[in-house]
Amino acid sequence: MQLSRKADTGQLAASDVKVNKRRLMRDLNAVSRIGIGSHGAVTRLVFSIKELRSRQLLIHLMRQAELKIHIDAIGNIFGKLTGRARNAPAVLAGSHLDTVVHGGKYDGPVGVIGALEAIRTISENKIALRSPLEVVCFVGEESSRFGFSTLGSSLVAGEVRPKDLTNAVDRQGTRLVDVLRGLGISRRNLMSLKRDRKSLKAYLELHIEQGPILETKQKKIGLVTAIAAPSRFRVLFIGQADHSGTTPMEMRKDALVASAQLIEYVERVCRRFSSAAKGRVVGTVGAIKVEPGVINAVPGKTDLSIDIRSILAEAKSRVTRRIQQEARAIARQRGIGVEILPIRDEEPVPLDKRLLRLTKEICRKKGIDYEVMPSGAGHDAMQMAKITPATMIFVPSKKGISHNPSEWTHPDDICLGAQLLMETMIRVANENF
Amino acid sequence: MQLSRKADTGQLAASDVKVNKRRLMRDLNAVSRIGIGSHGAVTRLVFSIKELRSRQLLIHLMRQAELKIHIDAIGNIFGKLTGRARNAPAVLAGSHLDTVVHGGKYDGPVGVIGALEAIRTISENKIALRSPLEVVCFVGEESSRFGFSTLGSSLVAGEVRPKDLTNAVDRQGTRLVDVLRGLGISRRNLMSLKRDRKSLKAYLELHIEQGPILETKQKKIGLVTAIAAPSRFRVLFIGQADHSGTTPMEMRKDALVASAQLIEYVERVCRRFSSAAKGRVVGTVGAIKVEPGVINAVPGKTDLSIDIRSILAEAKSRVTRRIQQEARAIARQRGIGVEILPIRDEEPVPLDKRLLRLTKEICRKKGIDYEVMPSGAGHDAMQMAKITPATMIFVPSKKGISHNPSEWTHPDDICLGAQLLMETMIRVANENF
Repeated sequence: MQLSRKADTGQLAASDVKVNKRRLMRDLNAVSRIGIGSHGAVTRLVFSIKELRSRQLLIHLMRQAELKIHIDAIGNIFGKLTGRARNAPAVLAGSHLDTVVHGGKYDGPVGVIGALEAIRTISENKIALRSPLEVVCFVGEESSRFGFSTLGSSLVAGEVRPKDLTNAVDRQGTRLVDVLRGLGISRRNLMSLKRDRKSLKAYLELHIEQGPILETKQKKIGLVTAIAAPSRFRVLFIGQADHSGTTPMEMRKDALVASAQLIEYVERVCRRFSSAAKGRVVGTVGAIKVEPGVINAVPGKTDLSIDIRSILAEAKSRVTRRIQQEARAIARQRGIGVEILPIRDEEPVPLDKRLLRLTKEICRKKGIDYEVMPSGAGHDAMQMAKITPATMIFVPSKKGISHNPSEWTHPDDICLGAQLLMETMIRVANENF
Repeated sequence: MQLSRKADTGQLAASDVKVNKRRLMRDLNAVSRIGIGSHGAVTRLVFSIKELRSRQLLIHLMRQAELKIHIDAIGNIFGKLTGRARNAPAVLAGSHLDTVVHGGKYDGPVGVIGALEAIRTISENKIALRSPLEVVCFVGEESSRFGFSTLGSSLVAGEVRPKDLTNAVDRQGTRLVDVLRGLGISRRNLMSLKRDRKSLKAYLELHIEQGPILETKQKKIGLVTAIAAPSRFRVLFIGQADHSGTTPMEMRKDALVASAQLIEYVERVCRRFSSAAKGRVVGTVGAIKVEPGVINAVPGKTDLSIDIRSILAEAKSRVTRRIQQEARAIARQRGIGVEILPIRDEEPVPLDKRLLRLTKEICRKKGIDYEVMPSGAGHDAMQMAKITPATMIFVPSKKGISHNPSEWTHPDDICLGAQLLMETMIRVANENF
């Protein structure tokens, strides 16, 4: 079903049209210069002056591309290229421009500037479109500032309750609602941001993988089946702080040794569930606090932060349950206390199967060696999938690193991702979905 | 060889003379009111205004007891009760008045005020003495401020080199040598504080146990065989920080799971060496730092602080060696880096066997159910043992707790300890040692 050159219109086939790598990389670099600090670390926390400046740059680029710009109440920016059927459901593509603290250049911007480049190329080459195309920059995908991830896309998907916003506070103690008020954003308007399903045909998101799978398997493209969602909880062991010199081994109630047993168990049980069939479970103890935490005291209290993810809800809850059982068993066996405090528990989100079939087909025709894979990280696509068919395209991350200044993807890979995104957008716009 | 009542002099036997419990507890409480804060926490860091005030209180109490006071260059305070042989070697007893941050009332003061009470009682009852008795308050036994423990007694034992002082800095960045200069203490004088061995007959120190052994075994008195010395070192595991959602279990280089294996190993190997015959080894991982230390990142780096103690130097170094071997093996097996950084490595100090025999004999005669035991914690006796026969008497610590506001010992137990100290001082003063 590839578009074929039509002699009467002089139109090009999608695969003959190439995105402009120089322009794509130029604009990505322009974005990354906003908020860049020492060692190339990029910090654009949501609603910070840097993040707001990056939005203004995008608006400027959209204007140059002659897109029709719409900015909604929270600040999500949409740029539209209308098709023949002016009010037909749009094919939306994008990502986010906000970053973590000391992050990299590509987590987010690749999907926004990639989609912009796809639409610019389509527009310049006068590719015939049935449906309109839209590029979007969602506000606040990262949870780094307010502990609230995918803020803009959640509002568009109608997944935010007013009280969710009320509790969000940043490290300086500034409440999200006060930041919004300061910017003149009325909270009342936010609840009506939910986009009508009928206005959308599909959502596509190009993103860096943020993991090592593509690099390890030497693939250039990842096609995403589902987005794994985290279950997060804390385990507190309550033993007894004692003098490290005067307390015999057999009289100790050492909370850190109990924690060590659990940390090893998390690795062991997740390895048992790491195959695709068993749900590709990953589990991490990322942080631990020890009290009193000095060299001459037996640790009396520990606080572990645990993150379990899977693309299968059942596998995730089974592993989570086992870890919590093991924590209780360790505490019982050592005669110490234990508390388990849930942080959050989200459902994995499957992405659209027809869109995946389409991206596979395009890759095969182009001879791109792709990997079909889940996403371990959360993305705006997770929210958008709730109101429209959604898919994601991954490009490789060097050494799997992200949320770090050394985050890097080869420009050729970024360009290939944008090319695949563009061809997919054209197909979706012109076929029945 | 107990002193017997002599009809011609009207003198009392040592065991018939009783220390004054009310006065002992009154003075201990007076000391603890200096530097007391919320929840009863006591903070008298060495050379702080509070610690200096506690010394002045002691000088006042010594004056009331009509002792001959001598204060040396660093600030160690000696109060002397002369015997018949005025210039004979003295029987010295004491401890320290400085505390950790948020410490308790008894760690240190029990030994100083206990010795003072012993000497006051002997003086009042006109017990005949061959040798002089001295009570001492050593400066800076705790390492809490400058990371330098047993400062005053180390100087008296001649165990300090000038450069040891040069490197000591507190948390505020104030150097020990600047504090000394501020107080008008010349560094040059400090190196000549070493006390002539011939001026001392013995050193005795009464102290709270700071561990749970006496309470658990329901003994009132502990007689100390040796002071276990710590070997301290850090183990750094250097793995790879990765996204917790996108890095498959089998591709991780998780430094925290490696640490967990080592933490469990420390417990396991120390339990194998915990019997008295094997050296009563104790080993503790008291602190751990994790980088980046956030819930959504695989830990890339960890830094463990490890403390190993034993009364047998050989057992301690064997266990230390095994733990360091295990750390390297874990790193090899996981394909990550490891660094081992020594902090300090001290020799265990055996205390005097004849003095131990004497305290045992007195306990047996008095019907005191004692425990012969090592000291897991360091004390001024550790330094004094290098220049004179030294012994220690322990009284029970409630729940083994110390370095904490809930540190507590029953007044009856403190009084029994002071009584035993007094009777031992008399015996040592009047017998050939």
